[in-house]
Amino acid sequence: MLKLSRLLLHSSRYLVPQWNRDPLSQKSLFREATGDFKLLRGITTQTVMSSAMQSSARDGNSAVKIFAPYSIYKGKAALSADPRLPTFSKLESGGYRVERRGVIMLTFWPAIGERKYDWDKRQVFALSATEVGSLISLGSKDSCEFFHDPSMLSSNAGQVRKSLSIKAHVDGSGYFISLSVVNNILKTNDRFVVPVTTAEFAVMRTAFTFALPHIMGWDQYTNQLPHGANQSSPKAVHELQSSEWDR
Amino acid sequence: MLKLSRLLLHSSRYLVPQWNRDPLSQKSLFREATGDFKLLRGITTQTVMSSAMQSSARDGNSAVKIFAPYSIYKGKAALSADPRLPTFSKLESGGYRVERRGVIMLTFWPAIGERKYDWDKRQVFALSATEVGSLISLGSKDSCEFFHDPSMLSSNAGQVRKSLSIKAHVDGSGYFISLSVVNNILKTNDRFVVPVTTAEFAVMRTAFTFALPHIMGWDQYTNQLPHGANQSSPKAVHELQSSEWDR
Amino acid sequence: MLKLSRLLLHSSRYLVPQWNRDPLSQKSLFREATGDFKLLRGITTQTVMSSAMQSSARDGNSAVKIFAPYSIYKGKAALSADPRLPTFSKLESGGYRVERRGVIMLTFWPAIGERKYDWDKRQVFALSATEVGSLISLGSKDSCEFFHDPSMLSSNAGQVRKSLSIKAHVDGSGYFISLSVVNNILKTNDRFVVPVTTAEFAVMRTAFTFALPHIMGWDQYTNQLPHGANQSSPKAVHELQSSEWDR
Amino acid sequence: MLKLSRLLLHSSRYLVPQWNRDPLSQKSLFREATGDFKLLRGITTQTVMSSAMQSSARDGNSAVKIFAPYSIYKGKAALSADPRLPTFSKLESGGYRVERRGVIMLTFWPAIGERKYDWDKRQVFALSATEVGSLISLGSKDSCEFFHDPSMLSSNAGQVRKSLSIKAHVDGSGYFISLSVVNNILKTNDRFVVPVTTAEFAVMRTAFTFALPHIMGWDQYTNQLPHGANQSSPKAVHELQSSEWDR
Repeated sequence: MLKLSRLLLHSSRYLVPQWNRDPLSQKSLFREATGDFKLLRGITTQTVMSSAMQSSARDGNSAVKIFAPYSIYKGKAALSADPRLPTFSKLESGGYRVERRGVIMLTFWPAIGERKYDWDKRQVFALSATEVGSLISLGSKDSCEFFHDPSMLSSNAGQVRKSLSIKAHVDGSGYFISLSVVNNILKTNDRFVVPVTTAEFAVMRTAFTFALPHIMGWDQYTNQLPHGANQSSPKAVHELQSSEWDR
Repeated sequence: MLKLSRLLLHSSRYLVPQWNRDPLSQKSLFREATGDFKLLRGITTQTVMSSAMQSSARDGNSAVKIFAPYSIYKGKAALSADPRLPTFSKLESGGYRVERRGVIMLTFWPAIGERKYDWDKRQVFALSATEVGSLISLGSKDSCEFFHDPSMLSSNAGQVRKSLSIKAHVDGSGYFISLSVVNNILKTNDRFVVPVTTAEFAVMRTAFTFALPHIMGWDQYTNQLPHGANQSSPKAVHELQSSEWDR
Repeated sequence: MLKLSRLLLHSSRYLVPQWNRDPLSQKSLFREATGDFKLLRGITTQTVMSSAMQSSARDGNSAVKIFAPYSIYKGKAALSADPRLPTFSKLESGGYRVERRGVIMLTFWPAIGERKYDWDKRQVFALSATEVGSLISLGSKDSCEFFHDPSMLSSNAGQVRKSLSIKAHVDGSGYFISLSVVNNILKTNDRFVVPVTTAEFAVMRTAFTFALPHIMGWDQYTNQLPHGANQSSPKAVHELQSSEWDR
Repeated sequence: MLKLSRLLLHSSRYLVPQWNRDPLSQKSLFREATGDFKLLRGITTQTVMSSAMQSSARDGNSAVKIFAPYSIYKGKAALSADPRLPTFSKLESGGYRVERRGVIMLTFWPAIGERKYDWDKRQVFALSATEVGSLISLGSKDSCEFFHDPSMLSSNAGQVRKSLSIKAHVDGSGYFISLSVVNNILKTNDRFVVPVTTAEFAVMRTAFTFALPHIMGWDQYTNQLPHGANQSSPKAVHELQSSEWDR
């Protein structure tokens, strides 16, 4: 916890958490608002949180922070993707339950010269599990589009509109991935277009397919052998449980 | 073991284990009967077990209970899926063998208002490994249906009938997943229909494909390097084994 | 090592290791000869090894023996599959190298009555990585056949012939998986045919795809973070290595 | 680190690192230059590094070196593939960031007689994540070709040219995988052609799909449950973080 806290410094830029259509997942939206730490050197900027979101800002279950984005640099913009895992809360029963869902974070930032890109002008889009499902099942001629309103459920609803579009090339040789962000509060209008080859999309599909169970938290359903089973008495346990059930 | 035992409280609702067509797997059926703990706060209801099933009611090999269901909320009902891992028993030889097979548990519960759902009226359907294989290999125009009789092999055989149907939309844009439960003992007849988009089905297919080796127990076949190999003498071991084989 | 040794008892049945077409892999064939331990209770039969094979008979790197076969019971025979992991030998350099390759072991045994099967009459067929590749890439109308000669490279070459055939149903609704074993030494001729549905084959394809990197040993290529990196001095290490390379 | 250092001995053969088109990944190219250790017995040859590359020559995060190549032996040449994992550097913040990207290393070496191959004449080609994406998404009639210039960005640019070609058989029954290396410095011109069956390519596709998240470093994004969460006070942590964000 302390380690993470040191990462989080305040920025003056106002950004409200993004909407996600699932009624249970508003808490998970904090992630999209916090942007992407991955190219910074020990210091990160941090958005001001709306107070409604502060209670979800616990990220203490990830002991080690990993930065391994898949990045695609093209003429007008760059695109990178990396998974953000769910957080779990401990139940009184001793179990763990997903508290904030994981996402795959897409980050776009513009080119400002030959092989130069401006990370400060980045915009992010947090793909939910279902949006990831949409992306990885796209055929070579298919397209899809997602809309997010990060101010959803706040007084600023409708003020910021994000749309991510994935459009197949006519000849099936790849896709255009575009992000448009219209921010009526900051009076900004950003648009990024990154052409992605079939090979690059195959990397995304494979890596996202790998990551999907992890952002859902399903990688935590892991068989554990009862290594101590020979020390405890299985018979005693059986009797104990039977009496519970028969009570 | 003690941790699990505390979870298990008795309920007055009578429910007998469900049938599964594999002659070796009756024991695994206990899971479907026990329902779904995931939204309860430290207390769970527990069905009365038929005495034939009690001996399989050990679930002590899962040290930590995880709640990370994939849930889909639609107009008339909600559907969630999560894996239930197999249990292993220790052999005298020192190895472990699957005792109760894993399943992917589907839970349906009805809508009772706008964005309100009644968890108490849920019904469950436990997909076996082979039923999961059927689901994940469905083409975009395919359909399938599974029938379970949870009272199979008991005096109540035929009294409760469950059928799960997965039917492709005519235009290939998704599926209807329906559960019907006819219970002649309780005189109830429940039916749930959840339309599932292609994207949501892709999440299920990907997550179920990930989970399948885990519910089979194959994730336990894990290479372990002989880290201590340099301490023991490989030559001595070789001689020992040769003499065993030649005996 | 001692644990495994206790498992290995001698049997009077003569069986020589099976051939595998890769010139480097003769050692790995021992596995097919040893049959399948999975339904035995603490005692296993063990074939007499030809002396050429004894030196490869170390299986000490699997600390825990797991029995989680996927089994299909049909009218005339049953079929089960489970992975057998590779063994590694430690190099002087400190690394590990695959010594005996892994396989997916198929075991067939005949029905001898309604829901009764005779495990003592089983025959096994060890699928190599490439044969697994063939199986998992089969289309719904495709077929394939593999031939093994377990006596290959011994004086009994040609005396035992095994062939495994996977033949698609004409309507694409599944496959026939057949094993034929002609043993001119024992004067036996066994044939097993197990019809496998599309759903069952999907389980096999998914589980074999999961297991393939494990039987190849690729699951051992696992990233390990340098948790102690902050204790050692990276600069010193760099200089050390540079001087080695520049020497 | 010391263990690795002992592996690295100097060789007189001059080889410069190979080019990779991603501006961020020059460091990762060291791997291709270092060739393949896997068939050596405790001693490896090591190429002279150009000084620009020396700073990337840290490989200390792989505690155990694994040799488990997938090898295909054909009439005129052999081909083997194995993954080389990324390295991570520790950030001041406590996190880890990919420093040198992983690759899948292909090694070709010529046949010099029946079932005899000359390992000393090997040539390597390091597939980047995107090139792996290209390979695993090849249809049964597709082809692709990659060009590497290992001297890229050095004074020897253009002196060594490598091209890897994967060409489908006309009947869709497999591929020809060819490597051509023209070295104007050493005045050598090597060409290897290995016919690969559909089954062998399926093994490569499956193993590469498995390995891709690992060479990207995405396997390090692993959920860790807050096992100690009940010992610390979640409320205190929350207050701490809130104050950081509100600062």
